[in-house]
Amino acid sequence: MWYQKEIRLPSKPRGFHLITDDIVRAMPELKRMKIGVCHVFIQHTSASLTINENADATVREDFENYFNRTVREGESYYRHNDEGDDDLPAHIKTSLLGSSVQIPISNGALNMGIWQGVYLGEHRDYGGERSLVITLNGEE
Amino acid sequence: MWYQKEIRLPSKPRGFHLITDDIVRAMPELKRMKIGVCHVFIQHTSASLTINENADATVREDFENYFNRTVREGESYYRHNDEGDDDLPAHIKTSLLGSSVQIPISNGALNMGIWQGVYLGEHRDYGGERSLVITLNGEE
Amino acid sequence: MWYQKEIRLPSKPRGFHLITDDIVRAMPELKRMKIGVCHVFIQHTSASLTINENADATVREDFENYFNRTVREGESYYRHNDEGDDDLPAHIKTSLLGSSVQIPISNGALNMGIWQGVYLGEHRDYGGERSLVITLNGEE
Repeated sequence: MWYQKEIRLPSKPRGFHLITDDIVRAMPELKRMKIGVCHVFIQHTSASLTINENADATVREDFENYFNRTVREGESYYRHNDEGDDDLPAHIKTSLLGSSVQIPISNGALNMGIWQGVYLGEHRDYGGERSLVITLNGEE
Repeated sequence: MWYQKEIRLPSKPRGFHLITDDIVRAMPELKRMKIGVCHVFIQHTSASLTINENADATVREDFENYFNRTVREGESYYRHNDEGDDDLPAHIKTSLLGSSVQIPISNGALNMGIWQGVYLGEHRDYGGERSLVITLNGEE
Repeated sequence: MWYQKEIRLPSKPRGFHLITDDIVRAMPELKRMKIGVCHVFIQHTSASLTINENADATVREDFENYFNRTVREGESYYRHNDEGDDDLPAHIKTSLLGSSVQIPISNGALNMGIWQGVYLGEHRDYGGERSLVITLNGEE
């Protein structure tokens, strides 16, 4: 069976945010699936999806600080800078981290490890709402 | 339904290249699918696939410059360097960016955001032709 | 058809390890599939999956050295450091490289390029056993 839904997440501050619950809440059909894959896709080029620790919030703060140091704003060689200093770095961070996550479904639930959660990486200072396309495929 | 095709892209200069149209053109079966996922895989370890901005070409130039600075050629600690200075950096860039992209299909088309496109990252100076395996799965 | 299995890989030293054979061995159902996708997911936040060269082992050594230099231990701004100096860097490396790989299946086998293999990135000094969820989906 296939199920697909587009959801809009409200505007979030720059940084990394846990969105596992938003995904699960949007897809009650998950419960019916014995085996499958959940595919989550973000329709933007300045915000990313990745999977990492769901417990200690300092991991998400350290991520923000690490990526800001690794992909610096205002490098003199950047040519794409009409939209502000956070623009090109946001594109690079998005490709380093990725635009989708794929999670196995087993016995009616996402089969992640107990410490795993889905992060939205908001890489713009004022990114606004963000759209996700969630697609479930599996056997019931 | 499942559809799969291997395509060969002609040799491209080192850098980032938009290949969304090559993918869509190769898979006319896309139009038949109501819900699904398009999986694109590159069969090489020195070229990558990622999703980013499809409009301003300076984004792709900035990507090339950023990745050349972040994964430098000729580092003294590299041991895998028989094939030239661009070889090991090409492998690392490939794993940072990834070997596949997964894109939702909705109503007969790839359901990306309006600014999104698929990039081929050619990380060798003379990479030659590159092979992709495109797999569509969905309900018609 | 859908097939899914969880496997546990024995503890490995910090670094990058080829695990293609472990995946193929765990999934004899691969041989039956004409077209499909193999989805491999790691249930941890301090170990990663990526695809890269399966031949020269110095690639995997250079990867370990590159990622140790790019994601340094003991940075003064890290806040998440209760579990040791290798902890937060392991989380970052995991998100840079990714928690899953998706590989096309064609004619009963993984359809990778001849130089491609699946790497497990073990980013902790003492990571212990690691769990993978392997999901096959395709037509027979």
